[in-house]
Amino acid sequence: MEIEVICTGDEVLTGKIVNSNFSYIAQKLEDYGYSVKRGVTVGDDRDELLAAFRLAGERADAVIVNGGLGPTVDDLSQEVAAQAAGVGLSLHEDWLRRMERFFHQRGRTMPENNKKQAMLPQGAEMLDNPIGTACGFAVRIGRAIFYFTPGVPRELFRMLEEQILPRLLRASPNPGVIVMRRFHSFGLGESHVDQLLSGLEAMDQDGAIKLGFRAHYPQLETKLVCRAANEGQARAKLAPVADEIYRRIGNFILAEDDDTHESVVQSLLLERGETVSLVENLTGGLIAQRLSGLPGAEEVFVRGVVGLSPREIGVGLGLEPSEIDGAAPGELARMLAQAMRRASGSSYGLGVIGRLDGPPRGRAGHMTSAIYLALASENGVITRDASLTGHREWLGLGAAEMGLDLLRRHLKGLPVDEKIDFEKRDEKPAERAG
Amino acid sequence: MEIEVICTGDEVLTGKIVNSNFSYIAQKLEDYGYSVKRGVTVGDDRDELLAAFRLAGERADAVIVNGGLGPTVDDLSQEVAAQAAGVGLSLHEDWLRRMERFFHQRGRTMPENNKKQAMLPQGAEMLDNPIGTACGFAVRIGRAIFYFTPGVPRELFRMLEEQILPRLLRASPNPGVIVMRRFHSFGLGESHVDQLLSGLEAMDQDGAIKLGFRAHYPQLETKLVCRAANEGQARAKLAPVADEIYRRIGNFILAEDDDTHESVVQSLLLERGETVSLVENLTGGLIAQRLSGLPGAEEVFVRGVVGLSPREIGVGLGLEPSEIDGAAPGELARMLAQAMRRASGSSYGLGVIGRLDGPPRGRAGHMTSAIYLALASENGVITRDASLTGHREWLGLGAAEMGLDLLRRHLKGLPVDEKIDFEKRDEKPAERAG
Repeated sequence: MEIEVICTGDEVLTGKIVNSNFSYIAQKLEDYGYSVKRGVTVGDDRDELLAAFRLAGERADAVIVNGGLGPTVDDLSQEVAAQAAGVGLSLHEDWLRRMERFFHQRGRTMPENNKKQAMLPQGAEMLDNPIGTACGFAVRIGRAIFYFTPGVPRELFRMLEEQILPRLLRASPNPGVIVMRRFHSFGLGESHVDQLLSGLEAMDQDGAIKLGFRAHYPQLETKLVCRAANEGQARAKLAPVADEIYRRIGNFILAEDDDTHESVVQSLLLERGETVSLVENLTGGLIAQRLSGLPGAEEVFVRGVVGLSPREIGVGLGLEPSEIDGAAPGELARMLAQAMRRASGSSYGLGVIGRLDGPPRGRAGHMTSAIYLALASENGVITRDASLTGHREWLGLGAAEMGLDLLRRHLKGLPVDEKIDFEKRDEKPAERAG
Repeated sequence: MEIEVICTGDEVLTGKIVNSNFSYIAQKLEDYGYSVKRGVTVGDDRDELLAAFRLAGERADAVIVNGGLGPTVDDLSQEVAAQAAGVGLSLHEDWLRRMERFFHQRGRTMPENNKKQAMLPQGAEMLDNPIGTACGFAVRIGRAIFYFTPGVPRELFRMLEEQILPRLLRASPNPGVIVMRRFHSFGLGESHVDQLLSGLEAMDQDGAIKLGFRAHYPQLETKLVCRAANEGQARAKLAPVADEIYRRIGNFILAEDDDTHESVVQSLLLERGETVSLVENLTGGLIAQRLSGLPGAEEVFVRGVVGLSPREIGVGLGLEPSEIDGAAPGELARMLAQAMRRASGSSYGLGVIGRLDGPPRGRAGHMTSAIYLALASENGVITRDASLTGHREWLGLGAAEMGLDLLRRHLKGLPVDEKIDFEKRDEKPAERAG
């Protein structure tokens, strides 16, 4: 099936906003085993929209159109869709009533121009939008079925998942469901994990399982997608493959699906009724930001101190300047973690102390950073150090991840000193190629 | 002039990376008075590339192609460009020597497959890339001039600025240069600033000045673009208009051009030989992150404390629980800022303390947050409070900006309590429309 995606709107075409809806749609389709053949972006321009719809109707089987369903005059999708399909517009009574109710529930009267949002091309099938006033619709133009979706991201996401993907699957020669499991890891690069997981897809003899990756430094997402007749069957097929993933790279997996590194650490602490406080320099408060931003954070996150000079931080925590001045960096991280634990009364004091070596060098502005981690608890202090290379921002991201990872590994009783791929490498971080 | 942009590469087409290069190109062209008519995204696929080049060559005057210039087999731009132009490839000797030198300077031998990057369509004009091995090139296909650019963002940015835009300007009926000045403000919404600056473009009788905006909450960028015969003339035309901008919204302007709110605050502190320490809760360390991430930060940023409970933070700073418990929130912010100033020995103690009111409500998950700001110095404490509405993440961003703004305004001797547009509004933050 040849799928084309058309994104509309002056804000996207002029670059005022970055078109993340396109990548969302493309990734979601990939997850379900479909590929986007091409993407087109046009503005709120009647002629351009018409030309784009007609062209896509000639060359694609399915077209997803994003944007242009709003109530204002520059929202042209319904009108131009009708023109391209060679039909008129007609009022969708059900959707009009839904909109009126929507406004009524919010104590407002529906403005007259919203009525436009219930005008659909004749013969179009309405696609429900449970969280907004822009309903989607499906209509044939040329040889393709077009699916029109709202530009508001969360409305698009739900419509894609609940309305469009099930229709694509039902229309396929081999209907069924798709179930995906995602494994977030830290410390191993994409090609390394790919190699460690070789042969995994072959575990399912029907070829129903597909393995994929998405790197977003410093984490890597490993995706396992299974297509089957129903969800139970899909989950049953996925289970042994997921177990095998854990056997091969389990220690590096920090969270699954919608969980995050910080939410997993928070849950582990909550289970044990424990709390943590932080000392950060190179990471500039990144760990504090991640841990303090979660719902319920107040139960596990006590306090974080951010400074650039470890000496300054130490004095603020009540250490004597004389103790600090002679200490090697690893020793200093240990002292700071302990002092923070003492000062805050937390179960754990986590110190992530880094030292940038020298000025940026090379064309990519690489720097090497020595990172010293220390986790103080009632049982003493665990330490770990590492040397990372990269842009300053990447160093901070990597160091923050290592800090959370040290805590996670300790809480789960895993080894805390497994070598990671990002250490002491002088390579450019993955970037778009030439 | 009808301009089309073609972005190539499987990583972009599958959504593995978000296509920020497209919005960069479109914005840059807008700044120079050009509009992109449409955008097309295709993968590393010979047939699709050829079809896209041919179609664009029929309908556009200028086409910017991004990506596909790398050394590997899936980089097809030169080859398909030659095919679409109906010419062969030939070795660009100068670029080959440049590449060999490039590798030599880095102590490496050029791999054989990089030679491919010097093979350009016959008759193409080479476009210099001073920071990478992928040179660009310009070639005619159909009725359009095509400009091929590398996918690595910083290489694209330089080539666009240094090679392509000057060529577009030279080819225009009215050649000259474009000079842009950017004014970053906080506190006034786009439509409000648009209204406050009405009539501004008319100050230049030749119509050479164009005003534009780009909102990235919580800041707004006001852009002033001037086209003139040379840079001196453009700057002379811009100066009185920029002065008028300052007359109308000057207090709200926090930085110009490449400066940021935090870099301006740092410069103001450096000039006075002063330092700052922070106390944050709702913002989760966001201000510490911004101030500590700048080169030279160690001279002005002393320490930041992040916590969720103001009581907990206060006790950590040596306040008595009994003092804290009875205090109203505004008073608490004052006490924390003073305690931080005392404990850290900084010139300023800045406290940004927020309280989220109630659970998320409404379909967008809005929350109201009361924010209490306090800036302690040797002359006493300045306070300000405000009520913001929005998603939790937006509340943090807004509160961090208000904190930096309080400090900037104080350091510049500006009023610190001017009402901002984001206060107590129950509207959705600007978002892509239906």
